[in-house]
Amino acid sequence: MNMNTQFTVNRKMPDYWRITFHNPPINLVDPDSIFELLTLMDQIETDPDLKVVVFDSADPEYFIAHYDMARAGEQQKSPKESDLPPWIDFTTRLSNTLVVSIAEIRGRARGIGSEFALACDMRFASQERAVFGQPEVAVGVVPGGDGNEMLSRLAGRARALEVILSGNDYDAQTAERYGWINRAIPDVELDGFVEELVRRISSFDRQTLREAKRLLNRTGIPDASEMLESRTAFISGAMSNNTQKRLPKVFARGLGQRGDFELHLGHRVGNLE
Amino acid sequence: MNMNTQFTVNRKMPDYWRITFHNPPINLVDPDSIFELLTLMDQIETDPDLKVVVFDSADPEYFIAHYDMARAGEQQKSPKESDLPPWIDFTTRLSNTLVVSIAEIRGRARGIGSEFALACDMRFASQERAVFGQPEVAVGVVPGGDGNEMLSRLAGRARALEVILSGNDYDAQTAERYGWINRAIPDVELDGFVEELVRRISSFDRQTLREAKRLLNRTGIPDASEMLESRTAFISGAMSNNTQKRLPKVFARGLGQRGDFELHLGHRVGNLE
Amino acid sequence: MNMNTQFTVNRKMPDYWRITFHNPPINLVDPDSIFELLTLMDQIETDPDLKVVVFDSADPEYFIAHYDMARAGEQQKSPKESDLPPWIDFTTRLSNTLVVSIAEIRGRARGIGSEFALACDMRFASQERAVFGQPEVAVGVVPGGDGNEMLSRLAGRARALEVILSGNDYDAQTAERYGWINRAIPDVELDGFVEELVRRISSFDRQTLREAKRLLNRTGIPDASEMLESRTAFISGAMSNNTQKRLPKVFARGLGQRGDFELHLGHRVGNLE
Repeated sequence: MNMNTQFTVNRKMPDYWRITFHNPPINLVDPDSIFELLTLMDQIETDPDLKVVVFDSADPEYFIAHYDMARAGEQQKSPKESDLPPWIDFTTRLSNTLVVSIAEIRGRARGIGSEFALACDMRFASQERAVFGQPEVAVGVVPGGDGNEMLSRLAGRARALEVILSGNDYDAQTAERYGWINRAIPDVELDGFVEELVRRISSFDRQTLREAKRLLNRTGIPDASEMLESRTAFISGAMSNNTQKRLPKVFARGLGQRGDFELHLGHRVGNLE
Repeated sequence: MNMNTQFTVNRKMPDYWRITFHNPPINLVDPDSIFELLTLMDQIETDPDLKVVVFDSADPEYFIAHYDMARAGEQQKSPKESDLPPWIDFTTRLSNTLVVSIAEIRGRARGIGSEFALACDMRFASQERAVFGQPEVAVGVVPGGDGNEMLSRLAGRARALEVILSGNDYDAQTAERYGWINRAIPDVELDGFVEELVRRISSFDRQTLREAKRLLNRTGIPDASEMLESRTAFISGAMSNNTQKRLPKVFARGLGQRGDFELHLGHRVGNLE
Repeated sequence: MNMNTQFTVNRKMPDYWRITFHNPPINLVDPDSIFELLTLMDQIETDPDLKVVVFDSADPEYFIAHYDMARAGEQQKSPKESDLPPWIDFTTRLSNTLVVSIAEIRGRARGIGSEFALACDMRFASQERAVFGQPEVAVGVVPGGDGNEMLSRLAGRARALEVILSGNDYDAQTAERYGWINRAIPDVELDGFVEELVRRISSFDRQTLREAKRLLNRTGIPDASEMLESRTAFISGAMSNNTQKRLPKVFARGLGQRGDFELHLGHRVGNLE
């Protein structure tokens, strides 16, 4: 049990792991992904040498497409007990662990994919290939992971409202301007940029890095109670008549499948009627 | 009574109103404007279908010039009782209503004009034609609407201090960089950009939009008590000898009139001596 | 006593002082610098006419290099008693005094040099010549001045983590994008820009400026207790075996001396092993 099937962990060095998401056809997050992430989290928190973990994707078109809405009714499970729902348990622990986490983003990061990136300590994205979006409102739900909480903190209330109420796609340059990501990097330089950053960070004393992250964690992390409130709103939206009526139409157009609808999801969900 | 004379309400769709400000010669806000805005606010809050309201101006040179200082001594009145002074009542209610508000800005938005834009949920401005400023200190007062509170939140303390202590004009690009507005848009694209954004938003479920705004309203809205403190400082500045001596000089130069002084107000108030 | 030897105060006008740092070979801050700054602070706080103070450097290569680690073990002294350690006393008082402070930055501002700039109300930097960094982690310490507190507020948690955990150098454009500084200005325009800004500000009523700063000081200033916690972590890092082992190696490469190592400190400390 606990074998990772969606995440490949490449222990490049004792202090540096690269974790690659691979869940065809389009890297949807489902209850199994979250179970695996929590299993990985146990390892990240307890490894005696680890300093930095980078999350990327095996699919250049999709960092993480979004949540698998076909499995939205399924209960999420956790490898061990927690007071928090599994996803909020994961994002809270990823922020709070003193291991440094970096999202290296190519392709689409929408919904929980954006929220996954937002839960990492830093985000670097391909200038040409990364696409960001929180398209939840289009299917009658609100962001339920950490999108409301993190975007209002990083981008400010006005831009968070624009992003979330429009449900639209944002290119990497705009995401950088809005503070959604640390930086947009030309695609050919992205891997090198992240590798060099990791090399620098991991050349430093582990205890010092942990102390620095601890001090910087005093600001900018939302309280779990805020995320719980968003999650409750997400669930009640998901069970609404409106969503139950909208979802089949969206599946019929190609939701969750490799193809034109998912590639241009931000545009398409703005033209569902 | 309650007839709008300064604001034209164009009910483009049951869920989308465009409200246009027109108060010649240069779109000054006066006590009548605020009375009308509060009347509109009653309608915005209670309409059963409304999702989005866009505020713009009939005058391409002036979104809102600033407060009409010739009527600064006049008591502001409200169409119904409130614990808050009329302007703070308006900005607080505009933030808190779950209807989405967008400022589409061409021309000058200074003083209370900037503060009006800041009270809207989002702000999009003409790259070539929008100009922003909080020139209050030049006449011996401080921003008394929401400028202190919103700029320190959206632009950070350092840039808020720069903007407010300099009293200078800022172009749309700089305003975007500072977070004062969501985005600067090329003038020829501005109308289309806002219309398309509204079309998207209003294609979504009303209850979901309201829920999203409610959750995003948990951060980034100043407390009314903070605005009351700024207002008290504004009033005491306005009644000071310094301001009473400065104002006639500024009127003599062209304050409140269509002309060169108002067009380049930011520059001119930095050279009053 | 209290003679300034490192800081030259040019009282350009009764309401405008320019204070220039000159501590060869590379403008290191040492206990004497802090003593002098606190002496200046007494004058800034009590002068009846002063409105604006600009801090700059006599050395175009170094605004402030960083703390003089050769004197790191030395007790810092204060010209008068305070409940706070001298440096935190200084930054707290600089934020809280109602005199406006501006950092005009050419050359390197690293470690306490960046923290000095961050303690000023506004920061304007040469686009070509300014360099920013918080390289503390490279020698096993954390920022102990106000770097953790101010960068997380101005740049957000994600970018503060990147800056501080990487210990890298940042050019002025990136610093502007991150909110570290108000603006990057072309080098040939920087002096003129700051002089014109000061001229404008000091043309306004002193009491009004003070009232505006007081109101803007309600947000964005960290509590002294937060800075004390960072300082405690800094000191315990400085006394650690790791740092005591690293420092001699770094001195051997050229730390604190005019030369290649200091010029490219951000790059070099990422390649110490």
